[in-house]
Amino acid sequence: MELTVDSPLDLHLHLREQAMLSLVAPFSAAQFAAGVIMPNLVHPVDNLQRLRSYRQQIIAACGNQPFTPLMTLFFRDYSRDELLAAREEIIGVKLYPAGITTQSEDGVRDFDRIGDTVALLEELDIPLLVHGETSGFVMDREREFLTVYQWLAETFPRLRIVMEHITTAAAVAFLERYDHIAATVTLHHLMITLDDVAGGLLQPDLFCKPIAKTPQDREALRRAVFSGHPRLCFGSDSAPHPRHTKECCGCAAGVFSAPVALPMLVQLFEENGCLERLSDFLSANGRRFYRVEPPPRRVTLERIPWQVPEQFETVKPFLHGQTLRWRLKNQQ
Amino acid sequence: MELTVDSPLDLHLHLREQAMLSLVAPFSAAQFAAGVIMPNLVHPVDNLQRLRSYRQQIIAACGNQPFTPLMTLFFRDYSRDELLAAREEIIGVKLYPAGITTQSEDGVRDFDRIGDTVALLEELDIPLLVHGETSGFVMDREREFLTVYQWLAETFPRLRIVMEHITTAAAVAFLERYDHIAATVTLHHLMITLDDVAGGLLQPDLFCKPIAKTPQDREALRRAVFSGHPRLCFGSDSAPHPRHTKECCGCAAGVFSAPVALPMLVQLFEENGCLERLSDFLSANGRRFYRVEPPPRRVTLERIPWQVPEQFETVKPFLHGQTLRWRLKNQQ
Repeated sequence: MELTVDSPLDLHLHLREQAMLSLVAPFSAAQFAAGVIMPNLVHPVDNLQRLRSYRQQIIAACGNQPFTPLMTLFFRDYSRDELLAAREEIIGVKLYPAGITTQSEDGVRDFDRIGDTVALLEELDIPLLVHGETSGFVMDREREFLTVYQWLAETFPRLRIVMEHITTAAAVAFLERYDHIAATVTLHHLMITLDDVAGGLLQPDLFCKPIAKTPQDREALRRAVFSGHPRLCFGSDSAPHPRHTKECCGCAAGVFSAPVALPMLVQLFEENGCLERLSDFLSANGRRFYRVEPPPRRVTLERIPWQVPEQFETVKPFLHGQTLRWRLKNQQ
Repeated sequence: MELTVDSPLDLHLHLREQAMLSLVAPFSAAQFAAGVIMPNLVHPVDNLQRLRSYRQQIIAACGNQPFTPLMTLFFRDYSRDELLAAREEIIGVKLYPAGITTQSEDGVRDFDRIGDTVALLEELDIPLLVHGETSGFVMDREREFLTVYQWLAETFPRLRIVMEHITTAAAVAFLERYDHIAATVTLHHLMITLDDVAGGLLQPDLFCKPIAKTPQDREALRRAVFSGHPRLCFGSDSAPHPRHTKECCGCAAGVFSAPVALPMLVQLFEENGCLERLSDFLSANGRRFYRVEPPPRRVTLERIPWQVPEQFETVKPFLHGQTLRWRLKNQQ
């Protein structure tokens, strides 16, 4: 049995640079028509020159696979001229609170001072993508940040805002309040809770930010996604870390889900009897909200069991060692 | 400046066996008059012969330091004769729900079937020590288990029950309801929350069971301990794991706090202006509840900064690399 998906999109993707970029980009390029590329490199992507060079590196890393990198700029104070010049080359600007996740040290420290730049984004109709966590208690960070989303939504009523990688029932409920807000949901947050990370043995491979939450939170996410919420889109947040940064004292946050994203999503939607809603989550909802039409691409999966490898060079993928029901057609 | 503590007790201690026992026992023996020894070895301590042999191994591992191991049996169905024979040689029987923590596979699977043995403990006035967690969501396990404590407390009103290593405001509040229940509190649960484990980088060295909870839970514990609650006693739950089991995929739970327990407790009580209550928490409350009088021993600390080593052979201690204000007198 085969299943073909039209233009699947990964709306939240970390591809890194150099050797890691070369290792991981082909996995996304094999499965997705396009991806929204996160700008939190060691030196953030916060100017057009750097963004163009990074896009070229990504395209080169994808080889002959027709994958469109949808680029983002790292949020800082930008002038109108800067944003005007960038507008045609970016899909949005990504805002990180300072210090909240990997390589976010240059992020926003004072939300009282971002109004001018956000107003320009609204005026120029450039979406604002947000890592929405406070620096509070780890299980409360996303819920606490909803007041910032509320301020953004009400102060900038024409600004398109993307709540990235939401994890809580509170965020799902919040989404109902404003039509100009959408949200991405990862594969792993549809599957795991804090129990999987720290309920038995500690599992560094499942440690991510935002941290996986409660069974009730996961259930709210699943219900909203599987029922076909029109403003929920897939964004993997696939974030590779070499093995040693996952194992030494102090493990980095990030789940490398790119190699399994599409097969596992198909399986999840199939198991939940809502396969007909998969393409909205994977493509239509995102294209509509972002008003983007990447070059069309059809990706085919076949219903043949596939055991996920334990490791790709230095990186362990999500679900390593497990057997999935679907695999990409023509997979090596 | 010096400070002398009379007969400090560690009412919850994992000493392991063989090489690990030899490595870790001297740290406890240097600081405590006695310790309640946990029976969850690879093969549980569940008969008198094994218990006697283990006690001899512990005494040998302590060298010439006058440390009294207060032995416990691993809970199983025991006959009256078995418990009668053991009574003078044990301080209590330790109950683990099956599979809930390290080496607890042989624990209780069905609480409906433990009544006969628990009734014998009550009749023979042998305390019941309990690892009180359900198999529910990791942050809720202790709170959920309170219904079991309630059943035990009300069904066996003369049974002395120890809630081991409590971590939540709910458990602190529950303690008020029954005079025949006491609880142990660890050093690390007075200091850390889930934020320290998983709020920044993931910290396998701070991963333990029960997992560290919220700031509100920690505050409730601290308030109760520092205000001198008469049924709260120190139990370190010091649990060494060799480095590799903390770092490979799937890290074991346990904080090795024995080397720093007494100096850090003195510092905590000093910082909170309640040094006069330290000896109740460390000794008097436990002796009163257990009705035990180990051979007297005075332990002296001096107010000289001490940097905790990074590692003792294969094991990283709690607070490694940090500088404490107090150290044991005559410390090597």
